Amino acid sequence: RVALPVFASDALSSVAYAPDEILITLSLAGLAGYAWDWRIALLVALVMLVVIASYRQNVRAYPSGGGDYEVATTNLGPNAGISVASALLVDYVLTVAVSVSSGIQNATAVLPFLDGHEGTAAAVVILVLMALNLRGIRESGTMFAIPTYCFMVAILGMIGYGLFRILVLGEELRVHSAQYGIEPDPEFAAFSGLAMALLLARAFSSGSAALTGIEAISNGVPSFRKPKSRNAATTLALLGACSISMMLGVIALAKLTGLKLVDLGSSHYTLDGQRVDVVERTAIGQLAETVFSGFPIGFYFVVGATMVILFLAANTAFNGFPVLGSILARDGYLPRQLHTRGDRLAFSNGIVVLAVAAALLVLVFQAEVTALIQLYVVGVFVSFTVSQIGMVRHWTRHLAGERDPAARRRMQRARVINAIGLTMTGTVLVIVVVSKFTQGAYLAILAMIAVFGMMKAIRRHYDTVADELALAPGETGELPSRVRAVVLVSQVHKATMRAVYFAKAAAPSTLEAVTVAVDPERTEELMEAWDRLDLDVPLKVIASPYREVTTPLLEYVKTLRSESPRDVVCVYVPEYVVGHWWEQLLHNQSALRLKALLLFSPGVMVTSVPYQLRSSRLARGRRGDQRVRRGHGPVGR
Amino acid sequence: RVALPVFASDALSSVAYAPDEILITLSLAGLAGYAWDWRIALLVALVMLVVIASYRQNVRAYPSGGGDYEVATTNLGPNAGISVASALLVDYVLTVAVSVSSGIQNATAVLPFLDGHEGTAAAVVILVLMALNLRGIRESGTMFAIPTYCFMVAILGMIGYGLFRILVLGEELRVHSAQYGIEPDPEFAAFSGLAMALLLARAFSSGSAALTGIEAISNGVPSFRKPKSRNAATTLALLGACSISMMLGVIALAKLTGLKLVDLGSSHYTLDGQRVDVVERTAIGQLAETVFSGFPIGFYFVVGATMVILFLAANTAFNGFPVLGSILARDGYLPRQLHTRGDRLAFSNGIVVLAVAAALLVLVFQAEVTALIQLYVVGVFVSFTVSQIGMVRHWTRHLAGERDPAARRRMQRARVINAIGLTMTGTVLVIVVVSKFTQGAYLAILAMIAVFGMMKAIRRHYDTVADELALAPGETGELPSRVRAVVLVSQVHKATMRAVYFAKAAAPSTLEAVTVAVDPERTEELMEAWDRLDLDVPLKVIASPYREVTTPLLEYVKTLRSESPRDVVCVYVPEYVVGHWWEQLLHNQSALRLKALLLFSPGVMVTSVPYQLRSSRLARGRRGDQRVRRGHGPVGR
Ligand SMILES: [K+]
Ligand SMILES: [K+]
Ligand SMILES: [K+]
Ligand SMILES: [K+]
Ligand SMILES: [K+]
Ligand SMILES: [K+]
Repeated sequence: RVALPVFASDALSSVAYAPDEILITLSLAGLAGYAWDWRIALLVALVMLVVIASYRQNVRAYPSGGGDYEVATTNLGPNAGISVASALLVDYVLTVAVSVSSGIQNATAVLPFLDGHEGTAAAVVILVLMALNLRGIRESGTMFAIPTYCFMVAILGMIGYGLFRILVLGEELRVHSAQYGIEPDPEFAAFSGLAMALLLARAFSSGSAALTGIEAISNGVPSFRKPKSRNAATTLALLGACSISMMLGVIALAKLTGLKLVDLGSSHYTLDGQRVDVVERTAIGQLAETVFSGFPIGFYFVVGATMVILFLAANTAFNGFPVLGSILARDGYLPRQLHTRGDRLAFSNGIVVLAVAAALLVLVFQAEVTALIQLYVVGVFVSFTVSQIGMVRHWTRHLAGERDPAARRRMQRARVINAIGLTMTGTVLVIVVVSKFTQGAYLAILAMIAVFGMMKAIRRHYDTVADELALAPGETGELPSRVRAVVLVSQVHKATMRAVYFAKAAAPSTLEAVTVAVDPERTEELMEAWDRLDLDVPLKVIASPYREVTTPLLEYVKTLRSESPRDVVCVYVPEYVVGHWWEQLLHNQSALRLKALLLFSPGVMVTSVPYQLRSSRLARGRRGDQRVRRGHGPVGR
Repeated sequence: RVALPVFASDALSSVAYAPDEILITLSLAGLAGYAWDWRIALLVALVMLVVIASYRQNVRAYPSGGGDYEVATTNLGPNAGISVASALLVDYVLTVAVSVSSGIQNATAVLPFLDGHEGTAAAVVILVLMALNLRGIRESGTMFAIPTYCFMVAILGMIGYGLFRILVLGEELRVHSAQYGIEPDPEFAAFSGLAMALLLARAFSSGSAALTGIEAISNGVPSFRKPKSRNAATTLALLGACSISMMLGVIALAKLTGLKLVDLGSSHYTLDGQRVDVVERTAIGQLAETVFSGFPIGFYFVVGATMVILFLAANTAFNGFPVLGSILARDGYLPRQLHTRGDRLAFSNGIVVLAVAAALLVLVFQAEVTALIQLYVVGVFVSFTVSQIGMVRHWTRHLAGERDPAARRRMQRARVINAIGLTMTGTVLVIVVVSKFTQGAYLAILAMIAVFGMMKAIRRHYDTVADELALAPGETGELPSRVRAVVLVSQVHKATMRAVYFAKAAAPSTLEAVTVAVDPERTEELMEAWDRLDLDVPLKVIASPYREVTTPLLEYVKTLRSESPRDVVCVYVPEYVVGHWWEQLLHNQSALRLKALLLFSPGVMVTSVPYQLRSSRLARGRRGDQRVRRGHGPVGR
């Protein structure tokens, strides 16, 4: 028995929308289009067979789970790698957007009040998934396997029972939408020649959504039981078999029950020749209602299982995206905050980025599955294609060094499989891009190019910094000759005194207190108070013609440095620490700003001398442990 | 010739909405209500006369421009002072909200596409005003005086020409709304007894909106030419005369032309007994159209001048709010960020706070003048009343110390005037609160209480901190015995080396480098690299069972301290400085977090040792001067 891993839900759940998209696209040509539905479905099934066969080679060759990014980088170099990575990052966002939108579409069958608020509802579900993943839901395989099995049982059961009723019992099952005719989109009404070819290409592209999710499996090999590659390959085969039979079953049942679906933007239902504006449910919803007529629990089970597996599919992206993000951050293509070194914070960043992007997408597209699918399919087929190119190169490379005839034969056979896969996915990619370009494919391509450019720029920045910071062999730098200490003073109180004494304890070469004369009266008071203290530290008053603090201080520090450039200036800033962020807001942020500006001055270091006020000690007692326990990435990087 | 100062627009612009509010309120009782309109207007004019006479005493006694806050604080103590201040802060927000909303209402007469989007349009205007004020528009008196004179010319000209046509030429001028009847609010339909009294009180309260803006003048005394008090008093008298004649003129003309205005929420226009749902323009818009019939330029001039002066009136609040905020911050009642010591940044904070509050208000109330007026009048009359109480106390106090009979007589006369003002404004305040409570007055009162509480809490916080930080006489603190230096190391590069050498130059009692072992491989590499450097600084590797950085480091520093509590631990953090905020984002923020957490540990100081990367030097060259030139408040406060 091979356990269905967590991410199987991604691949299987595509059955919930791929048949719908075929039927909706064909409806553009009116009823005549539906003559082609099973041929398109068979073609999609064929492509799926080939892709699955190809991916079985992938998981065998790359059991470490680096997935398509690893395959492309190893075999085709970093640019190909980050091309695939761009496609996959976009793909993860769309997996969430499409799955949740489709889930909401199914939920609307049971909860009609969602109607008209799909975008908001989808965004809410995404934020809930984000919250669950931020809290860290335990990914027990069983918990995720049960809904997956339920979905398979539900769909295959529905198909079986439906076919049984129709073929064996000879009942005539008709779905509600069977009564309608279809008013086609005028553009495709003639249904001949080039327009027809384009329409069939579009329908096939939409149906290719059935393959989405397969690309995620090769990233997940490490979570299989041993022997990993083998189990993964077996699972892939099983998944493929299930996906194909479910998809063909749904299409067959749809055909037998006269099911129709339209895209209200272009084609319309008609009744007795009159246009009617009704919104019919998803194919699965309509079929479940008809097959289980008089047995509503069956209907609820099918629709519920579909909704749950779609949300699960969205959830797999919340696992995959941060992992890929972490790998890309490790390689310097994404900000280091996404690279995890043993704590959840980096993962949290990835989870939030994914959720925000997906939520924006569903809000903008109002959770319309048909619109989002166009973007989704492009991303998935880009990664399929580049990955297959990589696999062909992989086998060619290994064949060059292999002498054993048996191994060579095995490799040659694998190369043929991947080459067929490449031809197939490449062709589909071209079809998808050409037939879908104006429907949104261009958006997906733009997004991938943007992500690609961003990753290149980030890597360039990191490389520049590393070069600049690298020590030449034997280079260690230069010991400054003296330390000149400056304590910033604005008032005489305990925090100031602490800073003065801490500075004194460090025994600098010179030590002085410095204040900026902004308000003559207060400066006078300060000077008197300082004299009364009778310290052996002189107080220097800096004039400020424009009543500012920052500029005169920066200028003064610069002067100190220019007097003897090998010296280091150490600026001591008295700070007080309060317990709440809102208390901190009540204190002038100018110390923070001054510190930030001093960091731009060469040869200056800035020392914060904190004075912990009572409220900070209380806060530390209250939250200290918890805050401190949240670990973090490397320091100074 | 007395120049009309900038803020005259605030007081004068009230003519744009006060008559409308009287007419709208009276419409609740149907046509019968309109029998009272001129009586209500006369009553409002009387109150305005008294208030102006009272305020002439204020500006004479307090020429420094502290305004009502100063008067109340000096004479009645801090609680009265911040009560007035709360009222004034709320009042500034409502000045912006009401003036801009009324301006948009007038603009809709010329730009009908704004209809239905008033809230958004008003918010946009507020944000534009914010942007202009953030950039610092030059407040040339002339630039602001011209629209004010235009408005006066427009309104008085319209009234004069209208009266001339009616009374001298004997023409029968009828506005468009003259043809309608009014279906009253059922609640007031009977129009007798208590309901009538309440309705008249409400109409009078609404009309009191004509007085809004007078309270702002006493804050503006310093901007008058010398002799300031005298010029201010004269201007007040002139303003009062203008306001009263404009208001009475508008009401008279409205009566003569049969003008009607309804609040579509309660009462309705009728035509031949049938309810009609038309939205009529503002009183000034309707009158201008009728008076200048056949002469559209006159109409555009009146409506345009009204719109401009209303936006100018809103703009005065952008000058007044930050000044009052700065004074309150100086006294510790608002965050110090609002207290300006010679730079514009504090003003900018005030401008943004005001704009955001006003924009939210117009969005929530959809820029409905009638709804916003209810809140506005309450705030204004609270400050009137408290200010007059303060003035009565002021004269009583001064009379006690005055011997000169002539001066005593003058003071006694002034006290009588202020006492009359107090009686009058106090009575109106009670009427306003009682008659308007459910219409929104309670919201204004709640807002004032909230602002009051916030200011008390802020002051309490500042006092607590000051007490805690105060040095006892002779107290200076305690010199730590030794400094133990710790340099944080995550990689061996130039930034690290600089930190080590800077720390060395400070000649601490002990010096060690410290790293946290998160990744065994990288730790091994780091240790080897460190050995190769051959420094006389030991590298200490801290184990991290949970692969975190922060907790083990904090624990380690704590241990160092507990070994010898009189020592100070100085943690050196190597940092590199990049030029752009987005570059900074690409570097791990954990150093920042660690520094923030170390500030909570007693006896620890944190030294940032910056390494300026090339991009930071470029950025400094590009922006340095400009950034540095923006001065700031006190340091460490
Ligand atoms: K699939
Ligand atoms: K996917
Ligand atoms: K999928
Ligand atoms: K006024
Ligand atoms: K005002
Ligand atoms: K006003």
